Amino acid sequence: MFRINDHYLKLKAGYLFPEISRRVKQFAEANPDASLIRLGIGDVTEPLTPSVIKAMHDAVDGMATHDGFHGYGPEQGYSWLREVVARHDYQERGCQIDAEEIFISDGSKCDTGNILDILGAGNRIAVQDPVYPVYIDTNVMAGNTGKADDSGEYQGLIYLRADETNQFQPALPDEPVDVIYLCYPNNPTGTAADRTVLERWVQYARDNKALILFDAAYEAFITDPKLPRSIYEIPGARDVAIEFRSFSKTAGFTGTRCALTIVPRDLVGRDSGGDPVQVHKLWNRRQSTKFNGVSYITQRGAAATYTEQGRKEVRQRIGFYMENAAIIRKALGSMGWKVFGGIHAPYVWVRVPGGMDSWGFFDKLLNEAHVVGTPGSGFGRSGEGYFRLSAFNSRAKVEQAMERIAKKLG
Amino acid sequence: MFRINDHYLKLKAGYLFPEISRRVKQFAEANPDASLIRLGIGDVTEPLTPSVIKAMHDAVDGMATHDGFHGYGPEQGYSWLREVVARHDYQERGCQIDAEEIFISDGSKCDTGNILDILGAGNRIAVQDPVYPVYIDTNVMAGNTGKADDSGEYQGLIYLRADETNQFQPALPDEPVDVIYLCYPNNPTGTAADRTVLERWVQYARDNKALILFDAAYEAFITDPKLPRSIYEIPGARDVAIEFRSFSKTAGFTGTRCALTIVPRDLVGRDSGGDPVQVHKLWNRRQSTKFNGVSYITQRGAAATYTEQGRKEVRQRIGFYMENAAIIRKALGSMGWKVFGGIHAPYVWVRVPGGMDSWGFFDKLLNEAHVVGTPGSGFGRSGEGYFRLSAFNSRAKVEQAMERIAKKLG
Repeated sequence: MFRINDHYLKLKAGYLFPEISRRVKQFAEANPDASLIRLGIGDVTEPLTPSVIKAMHDAVDGMATHDGFHGYGPEQGYSWLREVVARHDYQERGCQIDAEEIFISDGSKCDTGNILDILGAGNRIAVQDPVYPVYIDTNVMAGNTGKADDSGEYQGLIYLRADETNQFQPALPDEPVDVIYLCYPNNPTGTAADRTVLERWVQYARDNKALILFDAAYEAFITDPKLPRSIYEIPGARDVAIEFRSFSKTAGFTGTRCALTIVPRDLVGRDSGGDPVQVHKLWNRRQSTKFNGVSYITQRGAAATYTEQGRKEVRQRIGFYMENAAIIRKALGSMGWKVFGGIHAPYVWVRVPGGMDSWGFFDKLLNEAHVVGTPGSGFGRSGEGYFRLSAFNSRAKVEQAMERIAKKLG
Repeated sequence: MFRINDHYLKLKAGYLFPEISRRVKQFAEANPDASLIRLGIGDVTEPLTPSVIKAMHDAVDGMATHDGFHGYGPEQGYSWLREVVARHDYQERGCQIDAEEIFISDGSKCDTGNILDILGAGNRIAVQDPVYPVYIDTNVMAGNTGKADDSGEYQGLIYLRADETNQFQPALPDEPVDVIYLCYPNNPTGTAADRTVLERWVQYARDNKALILFDAAYEAFITDPKLPRSIYEIPGARDVAIEFRSFSKTAGFTGTRCALTIVPRDLVGRDSGGDPVQVHKLWNRRQSTKFNGVSYITQRGAAATYTEQGRKEVRQRIGFYMENAAIIRKALGSMGWKVFGGIHAPYVWVRVPGGMDSWGFFDKLLNEAHVVGTPGSGFGRSGEGYFRLSAFNSRAKVEQAMERIAKKLG
């Protein structure tokens, strides 16, 4: 008789985005003529850039010929892609990361989940709250938590609270932890971390031999050149951190699928006997055995974002979305609402006005302004009373959404 | 102090294909003028077909426009792809599989590994021997085995022996098992299974409430229309089997990455309390949480293999490789060697002549004929004394390889 993984049964049924879809669908059926504006899920809306399009056409043409055909590629990614990433994203910013420490993958969502494969049982896991739900759900699946309590929080997980009282920068844990998920610029709060914040975490991890899982999916949205874009800009981070990056939001690859994970060779964990084990070797074995690399065509497209023209195009796309974010910040701020984020991140984190709860405000915004956002409580307890709006939409839609909100809720 | 997954430390260091690469590299350095012919790793060599190329160009063009841009797609795959797969690969062959039971993924190697995420601890696992090494290694990583013994076999795994004495069709296990990996047409032996063979396995699984993980990556190479191409052609299989298929070998997608996994809604496992749990729901949750779908461009390419013209092109490619297989069979057979497989599979499984062992023969073939194959012992104990040659190469290279073997080893 075969057994299933019981831990899956602990997962809460009402996952955030399906619940949003359900309510939106219900509204749309009841109001077929309403024109909805979606500022909810963080999906890009601008087309792939000309450099990427050209590189992908060329790659497809290559695949049509015997000479240009590519079969199995390296599971870790093609060296021409790993090398440009190492140079432009790391070495040019003073980070000592080389090409062999970069693993190209099909998504940061996949990698932040799969990384648990190489970690042992019994690690004490800390997450920021509010949080990207995937970090939590994958730990539940892996058996790293107990059951959910009435508030939906899982026993055994350590929640690091982030709200206005601490400027959305959680304090260091007051109990020992072994693995810490950090996301900067943060999803959902849009908060960036300066060097002081990251130095404190790196020091904590070094002192406690803890592992930092650093999700930098939104690093390209940082506008202040003084802010660190990578955890490896902090001295000592190579010993304690794995970093995740993605082409999804920067180059518009949400439907094209390319990301990367950095595992420095200096990072060492312990086996159950306390002996040191190089984590790079484990991740390499995991990827070689359970993954088969990213499409050649996709990798050619990703590499094209590093040419001079390609980088210019990516900056233009990001600038466009950040102008949207500024429009949202300005419009809501001028209504007297408290807004956070949206300066170094494509997310604006709004204090729900009038003391309403997050889902109540979701329904009000949907029903009255026909605008879809994301209720903060969906990201965790500390998100209650907040609301996330995404800057990913056309200029016209963003402006129209702000006009409607001002008119109906102002 | 963070802990790593100790089970990784049980993995044998000398994985098959890296060891082959090492020996080939050594030979090439010592013999820089030798022209090597590679019939080792099962990677395709023919370009993508015209229908696929056109569909991918069209998809790339779409991604360059606001209207044709695709961001996040469904994690399970686009319904237009799932539906053509359900119709052509299943319903037209009498299998009751619908689109929602089909999960599009980036590779069967990934899925055969990831499927263990949703299975519990304590399942007794059986594999055919010789075997595709990924099934074993992923079970070691998941903690489903003990340590390797001196022969390289893992404690706790049940090896189902396949050799000439049983026509490469292993007997049913003589001890209870919960999960059985079956690969037909088989990698590495090239053996196909008729209805009687599959009926026996389905009956066994039903009697023992066991799960069959059925790897059908090579089904398109079956030439006899009477042979089943899917486990679901066997009545009762919907309750006991998950099937894996791939576009890698059929449509030449090894470097393009697209595959599919079928999880019927009738398949039910047990939790540790013995209560029934629908496996489809678990896999859907796993894929929604730890995966983000396959590239839109890739899926458009995959869908193009189902048009009338697309199917004709795929049949042509497969026919080409199968002619190669026939050439290999004939050449080696006429030298008096015993050859198996290569009729319903792109692999020819050769009894090593002269009582040499598999690695000895590998070295001899490399050094004397400059041909690279795969030593049977790399696939497990029952592969010792055998050798795998792949039909994936150009006609000229295959013919030249056979001439060299006849001349040097004949």
